[in-house]
Amino acid sequence: MLIQEKVNQAKAILTEFDVDCWITFVRESSLNGDPTLPFLIDGVVTWHSAFILTQSNAYAIVGQYDKQGVEDTNAYDEVVGYVQGIKEHFLGFMKRINPKKIAVNYSTGSEICDGLTHGMYLTLRDFLYEIDFQDRLISAEKIISALRQRKTKAEIENIKEAIRITERIYSEVTQFVKPGKTEKEVAEFMRQKVKEAGVTYAWDPKSCPAVFTGPDTAEAHYGPTDRVIERGHILNMDFGLKYNEYCSDLQRTFYVLKEGEDKAPPEVQRGFDTIVTSIELARKQMRPGIEGIEIDKTARGYITQSGYPEYPHGLGHQVGRFAHDGTALLGPAWEKYAQKPFQKLEAGMVFTIEPRLPVPGRGIATVEEMVVVKENGAEFLSTPQRELLLVK
Amino acid sequence: MLIQEKVNQAKAILTEFDVDCWITFVRESSLNGDPTLPFLIDGVVTWHSAFILTQSNAYAIVGQYDKQGVEDTNAYDEVVGYVQGIKEHFLGFMKRINPKKIAVNYSTGSEICDGLTHGMYLTLRDFLYEIDFQDRLISAEKIISALRQRKTKAEIENIKEAIRITERIYSEVTQFVKPGKTEKEVAEFMRQKVKEAGVTYAWDPKSCPAVFTGPDTAEAHYGPTDRVIERGHILNMDFGLKYNEYCSDLQRTFYVLKEGEDKAPPEVQRGFDTIVTSIELARKQMRPGIEGIEIDKTARGYITQSGYPEYPHGLGHQVGRFAHDGTALLGPAWEKYAQKPFQKLEAGMVFTIEPRLPVPGRGIATVEEMVVVKENGAEFLSTPQRELLLVK
Repeated sequence: MLIQEKVNQAKAILTEFDVDCWITFVRESSLNGDPTLPFLIDGVVTWHSAFILTQSNAYAIVGQYDKQGVEDTNAYDEVVGYVQGIKEHFLGFMKRINPKKIAVNYSTGSEICDGLTHGMYLTLRDFLYEIDFQDRLISAEKIISALRQRKTKAEIENIKEAIRITERIYSEVTQFVKPGKTEKEVAEFMRQKVKEAGVTYAWDPKSCPAVFTGPDTAEAHYGPTDRVIERGHILNMDFGLKYNEYCSDLQRTFYVLKEGEDKAPPEVQRGFDTIVTSIELARKQMRPGIEGIEIDKTARGYITQSGYPEYPHGLGHQVGRFAHDGTALLGPAWEKYAQKPFQKLEAGMVFTIEPRLPVPGRGIATVEEMVVVKENGAEFLSTPQRELLLVK
Repeated sequence: MLIQEKVNQAKAILTEFDVDCWITFVRESSLNGDPTLPFLIDGVVTWHSAFILTQSNAYAIVGQYDKQGVEDTNAYDEVVGYVQGIKEHFLGFMKRINPKKIAVNYSTGSEICDGLTHGMYLTLRDFLYEIDFQDRLISAEKIISALRQRKTKAEIENIKEAIRITERIYSEVTQFVKPGKTEKEVAEFMRQKVKEAGVTYAWDPKSCPAVFTGPDTAEAHYGPTDRVIERGHILNMDFGLKYNEYCSDLQRTFYVLKEGEDKAPPEVQRGFDTIVTSIELARKQMRPGIEGIEIDKTARGYITQSGYPEYPHGLGHQVGRFAHDGTALLGPAWEKYAQKPFQKLEAGMVFTIEPRLPVPGRGIATVEEMVVVKENGAEFLSTPQRELLLVK
């Protein structure tokens, strides 16, 4: 159902971008999975497989044993199953379609559009040499980016449900967190809730949830440790779930009250408020047509002008089948982000907004919300954290 | 621990093959995972990351947030964490090492050695152009193949345990199978046992276990259906588990007795016996130095000379972290297998042997065993099925 929807969307995107053929070319997809594949089939393929889309049709050539599974998607006009090799069938299709351009899944600037391995690229080029089509190859980056970022209603609904369960577990763990417990104990509690909810993790469970307490934490992307939660420290968590293959990704900040305190000390409150305000400034600026770098600049500028160091990462990434999804990014012009910050926002994109700043002697203030870009601006998909979560 | 072991093994392989540098170059490995990565780190990396091995040293360059996780492996002499981009650090290492050859993870002939995406290949080449090293790039196929196929003792132990649990579940399901139950019900029973055992599946759970009953089944690699188990039919299953990230992959054949039968009819027995004998002939021929194609010929020849059609696949594949692992293959000289059937067997390789044949009107006879190649021949790792499993 989702596959038919996305395959049809892809055909329309080919028309829009005036590309007459797009090929996803994979083998043993359980080892070397092209991240585009789940939009094209349900499951995996074993041998060399080509999923060939034109503006009007969809064809698949797969090993014989994978044929039935691909036919079951009802998304293809023709599915060929072979026993010995793909080449002859593939060249047959290419001669029949005779495309002016053949878009394939590689990109230097966007990892999510870069599912074609170099060995498979060489194989494809060798095949196409035989019919002198080798110079028709182009990057499918724009096609894949559009397909991933223009979320359908069903995709948004899945993301919303993932967020709903994540927020529920955050509110449960808020009751559980106490001084004296370790990061690992907090994570274990959340993992139990994930199990009960029957969902999976949005990223490597080693650091999902990530739990950081106090000023001397490991950096982001690290697993929970035996560090003990102490009064007067900030605690923050990064946590995301996958519902029907679609992800959530949210961070929340807690403050552990000292004896006698009934609210956080001013420097902790100010750090947290700076984060919340920077998120709201960023969200309000988001709209179709603006580049992600502008949004990052707004939040980054607000935080540094407030006297804090700039966060050592982008402000936000897209979310979809992966926690880090899509091409367009709310980020600075750093080498590792390539052209991603210069992509224009589009309706249907789902982003995180996740600035951070250190509060000396206390810990890290960091909140991560999720928003969807609509025609007239960005709306929160998550219930934004406006107040520090106070731990007694 | 396993990572240190494999990184050290890789250094020795570089010496053996006279290659002075091997680079695994990845980004967002949770999307585009190079299948080699789990030998090099525990977990995933987010930004452009290079794992650089020489004959004597191991270096890693990763995004700042991934640094601690890589250092924790204790397998690297130096781990650099960067914020904005990898290029400057990478070129620094390359100039320092000044390797004559730079092996990278691409291969047309072996998917498991083909983890480098085309976009990342282009990026690497662009980097190397700046110091005129671009022509030093070679394929790491031989290095990766050796690293994967020469299983350490710890790796073999994990595989043995995966096999042990798989065989236990096979013996439990043998009590459960009854005429009138559906393929899906049988699979559900096994899935419950997998859950209880706290292990995971060796391949996509949609077709793990695969359960096929009767003469009109879908082909291999298809999920269980609502087809009902009938008396007088053959039932076969394909099932594998993952224990500590290492796989099993075993098939078993059942016969469902008709009222009044106390053994299978002659044509079913003969089909099954042909499979068992072909496996034993193949195993006895396996030894270091022989090519996989010879082993496939033996089993394929025995089956066709017995009057059955040849199986439409290779006789057996390697098993490791993936159910389909390694480069060398027991297979015929078909296009899709490239040069894999011509690789020589080596001690430490773990293979399946899995011929199949149809028994008209009854179903498919197919058994899959696992063996390890040793200096003086191949030994079963599984407990070989010698008798049809009779269902009353």
